[in-house]
Amino acid sequence: MSWYSKTAPRGDIVVSTRIRLARNIKGMPFPSKMTAEQFCRVNELVRDVIFKSNSPIVKQLKYIKMDNVPEVERFAMVERHIISREFALNYQNRAIIISDDEEICIMLGEEDHIRIQVVFAGLQPQLAYNIADDIDNILCQNLDIAFDERLGFLTECPTNLGTGLRASVMLHLPIMEQKDEIGILAKSIRKQGFTIRGMYGEGSKALGSLYQVSNQVTLGVNEQNAINSLERMTYQIIGQEEETRKMLNPIKLQDRCMRSYGILKNSYILSSQEMMARLSDVKLGISEKIVHCNETPIKLMIEGSPYMITRILGYDSPGDRDIIRAKKIRETI
Amino acid sequence: MSWYSKTAPRGDIVVSTRIRLARNIKGMPFPSKMTAEQFCRVNELVRDVIFKSNSPIVKQLKYIKMDNVPEVERFAMVERHIISREFALNYQNRAIIISDDEEICIMLGEEDHIRIQVVFAGLQPQLAYNIADDIDNILCQNLDIAFDERLGFLTECPTNLGTGLRASVMLHLPIMEQKDEIGILAKSIRKQGFTIRGMYGEGSKALGSLYQVSNQVTLGVNEQNAINSLERMTYQIIGQEEETRKMLNPIKLQDRCMRSYGILKNSYILSSQEMMARLSDVKLGISEKIVHCNETPIKLMIEGSPYMITRILGYDSPGDRDIIRAKKIRETI
Repeated sequence: MSWYSKTAPRGDIVVSTRIRLARNIKGMPFPSKMTAEQFCRVNELVRDVIFKSNSPIVKQLKYIKMDNVPEVERFAMVERHIISREFALNYQNRAIIISDDEEICIMLGEEDHIRIQVVFAGLQPQLAYNIADDIDNILCQNLDIAFDERLGFLTECPTNLGTGLRASVMLHLPIMEQKDEIGILAKSIRKQGFTIRGMYGEGSKALGSLYQVSNQVTLGVNEQNAINSLERMTYQIIGQEEETRKMLNPIKLQDRCMRSYGILKNSYILSSQEMMARLSDVKLGISEKIVHCNETPIKLMIEGSPYMITRILGYDSPGDRDIIRAKKIRETI
Repeated sequence: MSWYSKTAPRGDIVVSTRIRLARNIKGMPFPSKMTAEQFCRVNELVRDVIFKSNSPIVKQLKYIKMDNVPEVERFAMVERHIISREFALNYQNRAIIISDDEEICIMLGEEDHIRIQVVFAGLQPQLAYNIADDIDNILCQNLDIAFDERLGFLTECPTNLGTGLRASVMLHLPIMEQKDEIGILAKSIRKQGFTIRGMYGEGSKALGSLYQVSNQVTLGVNEQNAINSLERMTYQIIGQEEETRKMLNPIKLQDRCMRSYGILKNSYILSSQEMMARLSDVKLGISEKIVHCNETPIKLMIEGSPYMITRILGYDSPGDRDIIRAKKIRETI
């Protein structure tokens, strides 16, 4: 069961929590400078260390060479938030070690040699961090990981130097967005070492009103503190979104959410953009107890993404995709 | 049961047929110049003649003084297409003789002394004309109706001179409208003595895609010919609308009609304008066998009109009207 199929704490506003640790092997150039042989060497080193460990986590993991993953599947993995877009594009010689539920994914040969990533539904930074940390311990105990006593973990990009930790949450903030409060929020959290950006789309409004909040500071801080402060910051933003929602006209809110539900339930052609907007309203309606829905909107958003639909369709056709997407959503919602 | 609650021949495209005969009493000024006493005299003359007749039509008729009809009810009658807007505005001293199903309505003191109006659902010009003609015969046999051997019936406005007959159909032409074919149609039917205009709204698009086609010529023609030629013209336009519909992309059509149905089924605030547009799509969907609906869209359109809703509401509030309208439609559609 994928992360996005699960119900989770504060899932009404916090879609997911993501922990990422960047690590590199000493004496090896960074991936941007690596040869095919060196990629192979890194992949095998990490694979062997992980699968020889007797940690219970290892049982659910599998090793996949990215050269064996077709393009559509690679980009569908991006849409499921398992791998980065850059990794899907520069996939040659790379590999991943991934859990069956896709909550754990170790990318080998992304910007750094090793990127441990744990994604959980809802607000679960501590739990996600604990798993990432367990994997980190296996690696650090068995590999010569590039580490400087003064700086901390060494990484390709200086913004990751130190902990190599990026902790983030994906938040659903439809009403703060509607009230134009995201800009103010961005300013205020920047001062506290956090950043916010739209998950999808560009311009003033994020597609689906989904925003990613992540820590910016990796140098001179400790990992546990970073996790704690992300959790605090998230509760603060949840509070703001909830306060803003209290000021809404109930009938207007009901009208907005139910109309979007009605459209999804009855549409026969549905673009990805419109799906995001309508499902965002439905998600808002569910958390405000206005809409009842058979499936979580986030699961539908992800499963309705272009490559996820192309995967079902078996061929590439934006027109047919909009028809299949409409059918899928109409029948499950 | 009102005319708009009935199913009728070619009701898929022809919403209603309306026959109107304008008559005046000799030796009496036209209503624009009449005194209160003269209105009273005309009302009583016509009332007495009608109710003394032994025609079976008379049994279902009743006489109503417009001074006793409150404003909201008067304009709700306009929305039900029973009386004209002008008559609702200039109601003082006027009266109507109306059937229980509101298919027959004789306005006394509109532009002419007597306006016999028969409205039937669907395409039924002959049937509607026969009833109007029966009433006309009662009047002509018992009153001194202003008639000129050379010109025909005398009327206040010269455009009605001759037969005093206006025969019209209300047509639902969503696809000809979408394809910008109404302008061309208007030109072509004008040459044949007909005119077309949007039933509601101004500008290039008629609200609800509803158009009224009526005969223009009253002088030097015979009533039966006018009825026949309206029927022929209507079939011609039906054919054009049907041809245009055949060229539509079926999935786009289904998407359009079902979305509108979904919105109506799930909206909590609904303006009159939006209701008309969405119900027009639903009507199209029903006639194309895409949408199933518990109630005819035309009935919903009329019952969702502003004054019809104000009547239920009991007070005037456009905001509350949109909420009541949404509820009424959501629950009946």
